[in-house]
Amino acid sequence: MPKTRVEAFSDGVMAVAITLLALDLPIPDPASTPHLAHTLAKQWPSFAAFAVSFMTIGVVWINHHAMLRRIGRVDYATLMLNLLLLLFICLVPFSTALLARYLTESHGAQFAAAIYGASLLLMSCGFYAIQRHVLSTRTELLRGGMSPELRAQVLRRNRAGLFPYAIATAAAALSAYLSYGICLAVAVYYAIPRTTSDVMDDDLAEQHDPPG
Amino acid sequence: MPKTRVEAFSDGVMAVAITLLALDLPIPDPASTPHLAHTLAKQWPSFAAFAVSFMTIGVVWINHHAMLRRIGRVDYATLMLNLLLLLFICLVPFSTALLARYLTESHGAQFAAAIYGASLLLMSCGFYAIQRHVLSTRTELLRGGMSPELRAQVLRRNRAGLFPYAIATAAAALSAYLSYGICLAVAVYYAIPRTTSDVMDDDLAEQHDPPG
Amino acid sequence: MPKTRVEAFSDGVMAVAITLLALDLPIPDPASTPHLAHTLAKQWPSFAAFAVSFMTIGVVWINHHAMLRRIGRVDYATLMLNLLLLLFICLVPFSTALLARYLTESHGAQFAAAIYGASLLLMSCGFYAIQRHVLSTRTELLRGGMSPELRAQVLRRNRAGLFPYAIATAAAALSAYLSYGICLAVAVYYAIPRTTSDVMDDDLAEQHDPPG
Amino acid sequence: MPKTRVEAFSDGVMAVAITLLALDLPIPDPASTPHLAHTLAKQWPSFAAFAVSFMTIGVVWINHHAMLRRIGRVDYATLMLNLLLLLFICLVPFSTALLARYLTESHGAQFAAAIYGASLLLMSCGFYAIQRHVLSTRTELLRGGMSPELRAQVLRRNRAGLFPYAIATAAAALSAYLSYGICLAVAVYYAIPRTTSDVMDDDLAEQHDPPG
Repeated sequence: MPKTRVEAFSDGVMAVAITLLALDLPIPDPASTPHLAHTLAKQWPSFAAFAVSFMTIGVVWINHHAMLRRIGRVDYATLMLNLLLLLFICLVPFSTALLARYLTESHGAQFAAAIYGASLLLMSCGFYAIQRHVLSTRTELLRGGMSPELRAQVLRRNRAGLFPYAIATAAAALSAYLSYGICLAVAVYYAIPRTTSDVMDDDLAEQHDPPG
Repeated sequence: MPKTRVEAFSDGVMAVAITLLALDLPIPDPASTPHLAHTLAKQWPSFAAFAVSFMTIGVVWINHHAMLRRIGRVDYATLMLNLLLLLFICLVPFSTALLARYLTESHGAQFAAAIYGASLLLMSCGFYAIQRHVLSTRTELLRGGMSPELRAQVLRRNRAGLFPYAIATAAAALSAYLSYGICLAVAVYYAIPRTTSDVMDDDLAEQHDPPG
Repeated sequence: MPKTRVEAFSDGVMAVAITLLALDLPIPDPASTPHLAHTLAKQWPSFAAFAVSFMTIGVVWINHHAMLRRIGRVDYATLMLNLLLLLFICLVPFSTALLARYLTESHGAQFAAAIYGASLLLMSCGFYAIQRHVLSTRTELLRGGMSPELRAQVLRRNRAGLFPYAIATAAAALSAYLSYGICLAVAVYYAIPRTTSDVMDDDLAEQHDPPG
Repeated sequence: MPKTRVEAFSDGVMAVAITLLALDLPIPDPASTPHLAHTLAKQWPSFAAFAVSFMTIGVVWINHHAMLRRIGRVDYATLMLNLLLLLFICLVPFSTALLARYLTESHGAQFAAAIYGASLLLMSCGFYAIQRHVLSTRTELLRGGMSPELRAQVLRRNRAGLFPYAIATAAAALSAYLSYGICLAVAVYYAIPRTTSDVMDDDLAEQHDPPG
């Protein structure tokens, strides 16, 4: 089975999920809002959670893109693992809204932060599961041109990318702000050009692969 | 009429429908939620219904993918049947939200479960209608390479796939949980790699068809 | 400018708009719903309006598809007219929700039906405006193979398609049900295979055009 | 990294964002609406804000289209800048809803108008940032065929396009209506065929580039 429609469907789900994040931004009721600027400022967690989730899903999209470029065709297990990844991605608008609503509350903030960290962790695990399936279990799905060393290296980096989210989830037991801060730091880290291993590998591969 | 935009439009509708499922996940109001974890746990039907609907639409997408791969071009009847299938898919977020809201209620749970089972049944019937149109009525739309035996086999398997949902719909008269449990079992069954006939046929076809 | 991304963007907007229609289907509050079946039955206008709008946007998508197939490239005016068409399509979920909410009310039903008819009329006018631009003003955008007679015929049929919606809009002054009934009749008419002129022309063109 | 999926993902996000704009159109509650026409007329800012935002995102989509056509491949910085542009686009439904809700209120109108103007300004800056990256910093990403003069000219025009939105944002300090009026004027200006520099450049380029 070729990969074209996997790309199209995944792009669609990720595009909708990333755009739905903004649906939760607060529109205060004019009747009870004497100072709009003040009211919006108090709801800063909504904007902060939106920004981190948007960039995180965005980076997953970029890595998903790079992953599918290495693949020539997909099997049924790849499709189901991809579906699972998309399911985890679709949970992010929910966990984002939960964090936004509870981050500054006296009750529930730590649990909401744990859910948020866990949803990003699940998303990363979902992505890692596809990578491992393709790069280690069913390498015949690859388009070729990847040495075993390079494959092991990509997987090692993917595995390393799980730790920050595991720590963020655990850190929620200490402080919701700490947990959110770790997720923010990861998003900023990936946003700086040339730090994502996947895209670098991809650029390397580019030099060996025929165009197209 | 070629099939490229049918794929694009169908992928779009299914991607939006599958992502909208998550819009119904509950964000409890902090003011009336002393224990967030407890409140969310009580709303487990929302998460359970979300997971089953997500995987079910996902499998329909995979089968839709496999179906269109066999087709070379589409006629007006295929377009209208496909539109009908997409209409039934768009009803799933509604029936999912209904089930989620009523599954643990004393009133309405069985009716909601019947609606849920019926919406999955309609979706399967919509898919079967396209398959029968293409594999039995208008075989000239096929790309070729499928023997009458293989076509009959695919249709037989598709027909067999309707029964569990018919049973789930009827079982709602006995118990909403039983009805939901059958839908869950079907989703789990399809999620295990190598059990969907369509994709296996597709892989068989792959060996005979030219690439592309 | 080539037309590929016009297709992709238009498919996206139409796919989202058609799926959002289902967001307005009613999920009654369990606390105030002793009989779910009864409550849902009373809200039949939501389901009726959903079905008509879904099929109507679906037919516009099919015709849009057929139109773009005749075109080789697009100019800026085509892009802006297409954007206007998409704007009118995006109004349909709004006018559908309005009709669904007011059809059985004692106040506002006729106005809501007029808005609904007018939104379908606007959508058809937007489609006709692109057709006229391409088939009569800037025929150099066509891929070739269409005689002036065929172009005039397609435009004549498109123009004729505006009348039912104009009548439906005007009929709202008499009765909201009559107005809705006309829109329903048009949707059923187009849903029957082989009655849409566009697709027939398209199939004729198929015999003269090179594949691809 | 090739640009195909950047197009697909960007088209998806823009298609969803532009369609979500209509979600905020008001459906008055029948119980408290004796005169539907009157109530809707009073909520004209919702329709006015919807129209301007729709056409503005639409023109960004057209320019995005023209920009990507000039590019042969993308680097990681282009991907991140594009993600930032999409983030700003996703903020427009929020700022549109805010303007719609507050434009005719005695409190908050000017702040809402400033947010609205600022969100369109951010969107334009995001677009300009990609253009500058591609047309001036990393010209090796271009498909070729653009003289330094043409590149400087396109950038100059893009920079000029930032001013109206900066003025609209500042003008909110004087009057929310003035601020909105400037945004409306810009949308109308771009909607008139043959005034957008990008598409003209693109048409020029068309004569030099090989088809495809």
